[in-house]
Amino acid sequence: MKKNKEDIKKVVLAYSGGLDTSIIIPWLKENYNNCEVIAVSGDVGQGTELDGLEEKAIKTGASKLYVLDLKKDYIENYIWPCLKADAKYEDYLLGTSHARPCIAKALADIAKKEGADAICHGCTGKGNDQVRFELTLKAMAPDMTIIAPWREWNIKSRDEEIDYAEAHNIPLKINRETNYSKDKNLWHLSHEGLDLEKPSLEPQYNKPGFLELGVSPEQAPDTPTYVKIHFEKGIPTAVDGKEMGSVELVEYLNKLGGENGIGLLDIVENRLVGMKSRGVYETPGGAILYKAHNVLETITLDKESFHFKEIIAQKMGELVYNGQWFTPLREAISAFTDDLQKTVTGDVTLKLYKGNMINAGVTSPYTLYDEQTASFGEDEDYNQADATGFINLFGLPIAERAKLAKSWPTEE
Amino acid sequence: MKKNKEDIKKVVLAYSGGLDTSIIIPWLKENYNNCEVIAVSGDVGQGTELDGLEEKAIKTGASKLYVLDLKKDYIENYIWPCLKADAKYEDYLLGTSHARPCIAKALADIAKKEGADAICHGCTGKGNDQVRFELTLKAMAPDMTIIAPWREWNIKSRDEEIDYAEAHNIPLKINRETNYSKDKNLWHLSHEGLDLEKPSLEPQYNKPGFLELGVSPEQAPDTPTYVKIHFEKGIPTAVDGKEMGSVELVEYLNKLGGENGIGLLDIVENRLVGMKSRGVYETPGGAILYKAHNVLETITLDKESFHFKEIIAQKMGELVYNGQWFTPLREAISAFTDDLQKTVTGDVTLKLYKGNMINAGVTSPYTLYDEQTASFGEDEDYNQADATGFINLFGLPIAERAKLAKSWPTEE
Amino acid sequence: MKKNKEDIKKVVLAYSGGLDTSIIIPWLKENYNNCEVIAVSGDVGQGTELDGLEEKAIKTGASKLYVLDLKKDYIENYIWPCLKADAKYEDYLLGTSHARPCIAKALADIAKKEGADAICHGCTGKGNDQVRFELTLKAMAPDMTIIAPWREWNIKSRDEEIDYAEAHNIPLKINRETNYSKDKNLWHLSHEGLDLEKPSLEPQYNKPGFLELGVSPEQAPDTPTYVKIHFEKGIPTAVDGKEMGSVELVEYLNKLGGENGIGLLDIVENRLVGMKSRGVYETPGGAILYKAHNVLETITLDKESFHFKEIIAQKMGELVYNGQWFTPLREAISAFTDDLQKTVTGDVTLKLYKGNMINAGVTSPYTLYDEQTASFGEDEDYNQADATGFINLFGLPIAERAKLAKSWPTEE
Amino acid sequence: MKKNKEDIKKVVLAYSGGLDTSIIIPWLKENYNNCEVIAVSGDVGQGTELDGLEEKAIKTGASKLYVLDLKKDYIENYIWPCLKADAKYEDYLLGTSHARPCIAKALADIAKKEGADAICHGCTGKGNDQVRFELTLKAMAPDMTIIAPWREWNIKSRDEEIDYAEAHNIPLKINRETNYSKDKNLWHLSHEGLDLEKPSLEPQYNKPGFLELGVSPEQAPDTPTYVKIHFEKGIPTAVDGKEMGSVELVEYLNKLGGENGIGLLDIVENRLVGMKSRGVYETPGGAILYKAHNVLETITLDKESFHFKEIIAQKMGELVYNGQWFTPLREAISAFTDDLQKTVTGDVTLKLYKGNMINAGVTSPYTLYDEQTASFGEDEDYNQADATGFINLFGLPIAERAKLAKSWPTEE
Repeated sequence: MKKNKEDIKKVVLAYSGGLDTSIIIPWLKENYNNCEVIAVSGDVGQGTELDGLEEKAIKTGASKLYVLDLKKDYIENYIWPCLKADAKYEDYLLGTSHARPCIAKALADIAKKEGADAICHGCTGKGNDQVRFELTLKAMAPDMTIIAPWREWNIKSRDEEIDYAEAHNIPLKINRETNYSKDKNLWHLSHEGLDLEKPSLEPQYNKPGFLELGVSPEQAPDTPTYVKIHFEKGIPTAVDGKEMGSVELVEYLNKLGGENGIGLLDIVENRLVGMKSRGVYETPGGAILYKAHNVLETITLDKESFHFKEIIAQKMGELVYNGQWFTPLREAISAFTDDLQKTVTGDVTLKLYKGNMINAGVTSPYTLYDEQTASFGEDEDYNQADATGFINLFGLPIAERAKLAKSWPTEE
Repeated sequence: MKKNKEDIKKVVLAYSGGLDTSIIIPWLKENYNNCEVIAVSGDVGQGTELDGLEEKAIKTGASKLYVLDLKKDYIENYIWPCLKADAKYEDYLLGTSHARPCIAKALADIAKKEGADAICHGCTGKGNDQVRFELTLKAMAPDMTIIAPWREWNIKSRDEEIDYAEAHNIPLKINRETNYSKDKNLWHLSHEGLDLEKPSLEPQYNKPGFLELGVSPEQAPDTPTYVKIHFEKGIPTAVDGKEMGSVELVEYLNKLGGENGIGLLDIVENRLVGMKSRGVYETPGGAILYKAHNVLETITLDKESFHFKEIIAQKMGELVYNGQWFTPLREAISAFTDDLQKTVTGDVTLKLYKGNMINAGVTSPYTLYDEQTASFGEDEDYNQADATGFINLFGLPIAERAKLAKSWPTEE
Repeated sequence: MKKNKEDIKKVVLAYSGGLDTSIIIPWLKENYNNCEVIAVSGDVGQGTELDGLEEKAIKTGASKLYVLDLKKDYIENYIWPCLKADAKYEDYLLGTSHARPCIAKALADIAKKEGADAICHGCTGKGNDQVRFELTLKAMAPDMTIIAPWREWNIKSRDEEIDYAEAHNIPLKINRETNYSKDKNLWHLSHEGLDLEKPSLEPQYNKPGFLELGVSPEQAPDTPTYVKIHFEKGIPTAVDGKEMGSVELVEYLNKLGGENGIGLLDIVENRLVGMKSRGVYETPGGAILYKAHNVLETITLDKESFHFKEIIAQKMGELVYNGQWFTPLREAISAFTDDLQKTVTGDVTLKLYKGNMINAGVTSPYTLYDEQTASFGEDEDYNQADATGFINLFGLPIAERAKLAKSWPTEE
Repeated sequence: MKKNKEDIKKVVLAYSGGLDTSIIIPWLKENYNNCEVIAVSGDVGQGTELDGLEEKAIKTGASKLYVLDLKKDYIENYIWPCLKADAKYEDYLLGTSHARPCIAKALADIAKKEGADAICHGCTGKGNDQVRFELTLKAMAPDMTIIAPWREWNIKSRDEEIDYAEAHNIPLKINRETNYSKDKNLWHLSHEGLDLEKPSLEPQYNKPGFLELGVSPEQAPDTPTYVKIHFEKGIPTAVDGKEMGSVELVEYLNKLGGENGIGLLDIVENRLVGMKSRGVYETPGGAILYKAHNVLETITLDKESFHFKEIIAQKMGELVYNGQWFTPLREAISAFTDDLQKTVTGDVTLKLYKGNMINAGVTSPYTLYDEQTASFGEDEDYNQADATGFINLFGLPIAERAKLAKSWPTEE
């Protein structure tokens, strides 16, 4: 049973130490009966400055700060299932999308442990993230009240936030200059706002400071870099012959990809909440992994599986983008994918060169590619005369139709 | 009613003047009652040397040569429908696939006009092209016998072909060196065979003479080239402000793309006839057009249309790849696509740089992108408070499930 | 630009003369500046008593009543496109769903003609109809304010409605007995509420007065009735050899189907607004038409078309159910369907017997069924030896996989 | 490595004791070096007379007869996965389709155990069964030669078969009267041929002897029969409160359904080998199980799962129909299905009445149906005001489009 506003005594807050979540603390206390606020910083690789974070949270009014290292959980339990499914949403590699259920689940766990009455997040009312957060909370903590200040308060802009912060003596190192709206984690960094809001304009990739995870193709080195990735059942486990843990592996590929101008995406996407928005994404390591994984699947999956998987990938992408992670369908799709990945084991070499990822060799102990059959010469498994029968039967509906159509009424 | 072998007196042959189709002429005469052979060269941009072609055909035994310029027909009636549908097959832009029905339809027309008994093509028995040719023939000329020498004769290799040619005094400028198997037309050039038959090997893009329509990313200029393409209802009609006919436009973009290392694809694909094969494709202009078209659709199509179109695109790609051009489903899909393209009008600028196509601006009079709604601030069309209701209803199945699950039997 | 509440002077109301819409008139005047209320009754076959309706509307406070006969428009422009697409939503034949855009479009037209400021409907806040109404209004009259009293007022039940009516001297022939919630039109009648809210209970089909459009299978005659329907390009045009207009045809089949216990559907469906609900539907004529149309398609559509159409049908069903009638995707799907229906012409005979519709013969000038090829004997179009080649190539991926798997690592 | 014809010494034959497989034995010995023939009768409920079968096989020339009881294997490992997936092919419940891989796998096992060189089946060259048999053999015994006499010998009709039998002194109780072509097993009985080859004719359901598993709706009793089926994770385990083994359960429901005229299907279907064919199917128990299972899913699956499962069901149906049982995609789909069936547990009551299956109550401990939310009144989980926000965001693309379209070029 959800609590009424007046009964909310203890709130768990998704906390980053940035402007938004810093002013939420005093706002919560003012508007929710001077409630206790427990700040939780779930680290999925945002690069949040953790030093002094606890002090800052408490100074702002929180009673406690949890810092949770979710990086491994995020990669292995959220990113890998998407990679295995080749899930994208309109070409977007889901960077923010699958981080939200990971963080929200951790929040729900702490809220339950702390006996909190509500969970609060700092997502705006126009974005997808509020949906992703709240759908996970509805699944994991159905009795918990959800507080979304941006949909409730009167603050309407960054300037008003700063005014509020100053009025409440919140010490923040910020300035009133506007900036891109960014979201960063281990998997990606997104840019929105300012000139990007005009799709008629080219992003300023070459402008110093715009890109953070790497450089533009033009700025990348003139010599290519080869990278060889090993997968076991669809999961990357080693790079250039060196086994790596999941976090280390993604960080390493981010570096390699970033240096070579890999993984930039500029799209006008369709948000769940109804509008189109334009974003630029940096996903250097992710782009490499998706590409390599797909190449490996071209030799380890049969045609029927490969084609139907495109349907599955699209649905998975939509579910994840829409925040429907903890749902029976997403789980069943993962069961499908896991089954199909049993033989997606092998090595893929890519040549990284100024934004390009060029296939430079793929091998697998489970390859379905048969050089003998593929070649144009004779072979023992393929009898060219069989093609006649195949074409006759495959084309039978066409031939029958053409034959019968000769006696159809003319004015069809 | 199809003719028996002994009743075949006149055969129309898809003729290129190359080794394969040159030896087919005497072989037909030897094996089919000294039949008349009418050679037809359908030009879809293969770059066949037309000078002297008639003489060569007649010297080899043909009674006549037709040379048909199908380039405009090919682009406007076969390529544009695929572009409008964003149709691909496993990332492949269908270059050979949609050329076959175009040529085969022309062959059928001539065969009917000439009163021929059979149509002959030089496709091998292990490839897709035989299917594409024959399915079109079954649709367009159901009573015509189809002769596919590669599935009938005893010649098993290039060397045996040359022996046969020499034994029949066919004057060919060829040598016994093996070479890649290539297919070229206005839209693309494909490479198969030799070292490409080993997917573990990187293609030798930088080797002189390998690429024909352009250069590799590494060989491309260090300075980018901008190109602006105008579309009307999904069809490209102008480049950089200059209106162009369809053939000229594709040729121009091939040149521009080729120079900048655009449009190389290296895949292991699943052939219709059952095996996996590895090919390298050059589609410089095509890659630019597909990319630009897709970018334009991101602002002119709504989400539901954009997502469902992915399903349509996959199906269209399969139908075209499989040779099912002249079928009711392909036609109905084109009706769907044409309807949806009514507002896909506008301009897309791409920056071509060493293999990259970078979005550099998109505009449309029919844009669905609304800058005001997209931005994070307040606006008149979007009330952030609406998001609460949206999330509650969108998430209702999740919330209900979580609530009900509290009383489920534990051992689910 | 939408009007603020205080600027709303004239409102167009979807009016039926029933309890809900009757009390809305005084409520609007009380709550919206004593605004003018124009009542509009769009007749899609609800069986609304039209005699005295104008008097009642005006007595209740309306300034005017429009009565629009939308029956032909509804059938030909909304139902036929769904029938041609075989569109269903979870087995439901969309009866209420496609009536809403038809009525809402008419409302928008009148609102524009009358220069109204707002459009009001009486749909509840828990159902799908509010969405269907409003999505059409957003498409057809984007500047019009929408008023949905059920989401605004404090009336929470039928009893409170009656109290309100009595307090405002609205003369209604109603009683406080609760009843099923019903929606009726030319195509169907739906039942919800009361004992139906328990899916564990069987509906009381045999109870007098429950079913309105026909009888239960048990109550139907012991002798079957044959009916033969003629379709032209997917549209029914004649029954038992008699040409009929669309309205007459549906009414006739409703009678025939209803008498024979045809077209009852009892489902727990997933509403767009998030919850599951249970309904019983009577669609006697519709069930006959869907069945007959589908049978005709089995002989007039080829396999590829028939199978892909299932995907199209599901998407069409979702769009219509969700109120997305006036959208580019729905229109493009209709373009697809229209194209495919070009040969769906012919006659289907069904034997109606106590709830069963039994195939009793189908013919078409465009049939793709070829008796000779279908039979097991020899024939000229099908060479049984071709099957060997077909199986070898169709099964090649399986054979190759099995061959290669012999050398796979054992612990796959 | 497959054997050449002259090296085939031992053949395993799928044997029924009927005309076809009886004459195959001497034919094999005559045409394959007087090879040893091992007959295998895999019992999936065909109702083959087993008494005297061994004697008959040996008399005809076989060296040995295996009789395998595959009924439990067939139901639990082939039928249940299809039921869980709701897999159909054009409404057909797959009766013959999933029996073939079951039998073929058993044949392959025995062939390997016996060290046979080849496997032989008696399927004709125009049907689907040859494909289903051989695809399984290719998967399970890739080195085994497959012999399909119908595609090899000169016998073209039943009369010629009988001549052959008489010439070889094969003692068969048969006559030269033609009859329907039937296939029977535990799940179904199919009828093809004779008057059924004309889709314009109604099947003679009421003619004595036509139906074998039950009666027509008209012949069924005038009083309904209620049946209550219990499912555990998608699998039926009890009927009317009595737990039953899988074979017993299907047999029991066949009897119940058959008596009440349930489960007749008459369709023109699209065979894999290219032609349309017309069949009548009796699947009384299967029809009950599919219906009951589907009803249970309406309350235990959420909307997203339920809708996407339709796509899965279609693909599963095609794979099974096409004989692609032992493929990675079929297995991955089963993994998907199994995951989703975790909560498909509960009881469904159906009222069987003269061909009708009428919902008479469904319950589940895992129900997602919430009576309170479903009802039209107020409730704690659903706030009607939320609908406003939902509609505004769900309809935002439509509203935006309509707003923007006001300034579009008019000649769209």
